[in-house]
Amino acid sequence: MDLTAVLSDRIKTVDTTLDKALDIGEQEKLKKAMRHLPLSGGKRLRPVLAMVVADAVGGQGKKAIPFGLCLEIIHNFTLVHDDIMDRDAMRRGIKTVHVEFDEPTAINAGDVLFARGFEVLTTLDVKPEILMILVREVAEMVRYIGEGQQSDMDFEKRVDTTEEEYMKMIEQKTSLMFKMAARGGAMIAGGTKGQIDALTEYGRLLGLGFQLWDDVLALTADQAKLGKSVGNDIRRGKRTLIVVHAFNNLTKEDKEKLSKVLGKENATKKEVDETIELLKEYGSIEYAKNTAQRFAAKAKDLLAVLKESEHKKILLEMAEYAVRREK
Amino acid sequence: MDLTAVLSDRIKTVDTTLDKALDIGEQEKLKKAMRHLPLSGGKRLRPVLAMVVADAVGGQGKKAIPFGLCLEIIHNFTLVHDDIMDRDAMRRGIKTVHVEFDEPTAINAGDVLFARGFEVLTTLDVKPEILMILVREVAEMVRYIGEGQQSDMDFEKRVDTTEEEYMKMIEQKTSLMFKMAARGGAMIAGGTKGQIDALTEYGRLLGLGFQLWDDVLALTADQAKLGKSVGNDIRRGKRTLIVVHAFNNLTKEDKEKLSKVLGKENATKKEVDETIELLKEYGSIEYAKNTAQRFAAKAKDLLAVLKESEHKKILLEMAEYAVRREK
Repeated sequence: MDLTAVLSDRIKTVDTTLDKALDIGEQEKLKKAMRHLPLSGGKRLRPVLAMVVADAVGGQGKKAIPFGLCLEIIHNFTLVHDDIMDRDAMRRGIKTVHVEFDEPTAINAGDVLFARGFEVLTTLDVKPEILMILVREVAEMVRYIGEGQQSDMDFEKRVDTTEEEYMKMIEQKTSLMFKMAARGGAMIAGGTKGQIDALTEYGRLLGLGFQLWDDVLALTADQAKLGKSVGNDIRRGKRTLIVVHAFNNLTKEDKEKLSKVLGKENATKKEVDETIELLKEYGSIEYAKNTAQRFAAKAKDLLAVLKESEHKKILLEMAEYAVRREK
Repeated sequence: MDLTAVLSDRIKTVDTTLDKALDIGEQEKLKKAMRHLPLSGGKRLRPVLAMVVADAVGGQGKKAIPFGLCLEIIHNFTLVHDDIMDRDAMRRGIKTVHVEFDEPTAINAGDVLFARGFEVLTTLDVKPEILMILVREVAEMVRYIGEGQQSDMDFEKRVDTTEEEYMKMIEQKTSLMFKMAARGGAMIAGGTKGQIDALTEYGRLLGLGFQLWDDVLALTADQAKLGKSVGNDIRRGKRTLIVVHAFNNLTKEDKEKLSKVLGKENATKKEVDETIELLKEYGSIEYAKNTAQRFAAKAKDLLAVLKESEHKKILLEMAEYAVRREK
């Protein structure tokens, strides 16, 4: 299945409605800053996931649009702020908001996106009781994302991060939003409790697989395709599952080698390349790949709660795509 | 009426419930950063206003607590982020969050507070339809606050800010939250449309008066009472109504004098004092004072929609307090 082709109508819908939803505000600079990242593209995975789930459960994909938009807007708000916190200069091949504008404006743009996400959510055409649950869960989700981001920053200053800690961090920082997308889509489409539960777990596992695969790509992808620097995670000292696995398995000598380059901001390309080779040799990258694929496989199993349909096939394919993509 | 004494029970309720509402999260550093400012005191004017209005309209002050807490939490989130944007090191006599912790943590703490505000809002015990309106209006409010903050920052780089522009900026940045507090309180207590409209406008005018009075205090208050540096607005080049009035009325010579010191970060105490004297001479401070008091008087008139009660008396007093206080 060519996922991009199959999803192109939905992606177009997201692009168009997102553009409209963010065509708001009288402060020109703030408005430009707010629109900069969300309208620069992106895979639109979260809103599309919500829509496909809603279609698969009850043919309600269109109804789920405001919910999907809310998630996409909130996703972008977290990226704008994360880029400031992480001092990232590029994303999706363009300058990040605080670099293109300035830092105060980027902080403000993130805040305004966050607020706009909730405004858009309230336009969702479901019973107020359901909407209320979604508002509460989305707000809680954002709080956990903040906790995950904080852990992520803390890990960079520590050498003893465990696999358990890492998994919890990506569960909060990345996976939760996929979980919420699938869960919300099922709720909006009037799914049974069994369907909602299974799809919630599907989204969670999909998100975990997605993030682990992202970590792999950050070290192994074709830089031109990825749109950001390959190997930067090494220079920044990111504690990914790959690095955690390496620290558990490397010889003392190789561990010292890794420690030397990890977090060395001005590491040369040669140093970074050698480090990546080391991680490959010890099977650390393979370990993360396999873990990601295991999550994706489990996610697919959970789709048994859905009757056969074209939409279900897309959900199966999305789980595969998450751990196969090249960017 | 001794407002502090009359409101002390409500303030205590806000302090206690706020402490509980923010006793959440597993990331110790983030949790401390999130609690730093909200639990450092503050006047609690916004939640108290919501509670007193709900009492005055229908004896429903207690019911309004989660709504009031939501506003107080969101108010504090905006302060945490504003302090980063404005590079302020002190607030309420203590270090600001980005100074006490670090900037990434402060950005994150603000985001988490924002999210928590919405979570708390959803615990409000009103019909889901009403709750939905409040979620939408609070989200919209935060978006406008962001616009106001952006204008405020822009004005610092311009010399031609008009009175109209300034009034719009404080309407968005400060007054809206008072407006929302009074409006929400009236809605939660089941007020009539006439009452809700009048109290919305009461809150708006109270907020405008409050901000104008804040501008006056920033130049004339006793520094020890105020908890922040008197005259800093001059060094930062803030375009307040006072400064706008001065630029409209000063002789060419005095205008040049003012322009020289305004925005001069390292201005001496003598330079700042002389500038404040100039603003006094030309009646600019008096002009802002009178405008503030006019708004407060209009706000009081609007309370005619309420039947006589102890709560109504408090609302009358709050309007007076806003433009009389020394800190």
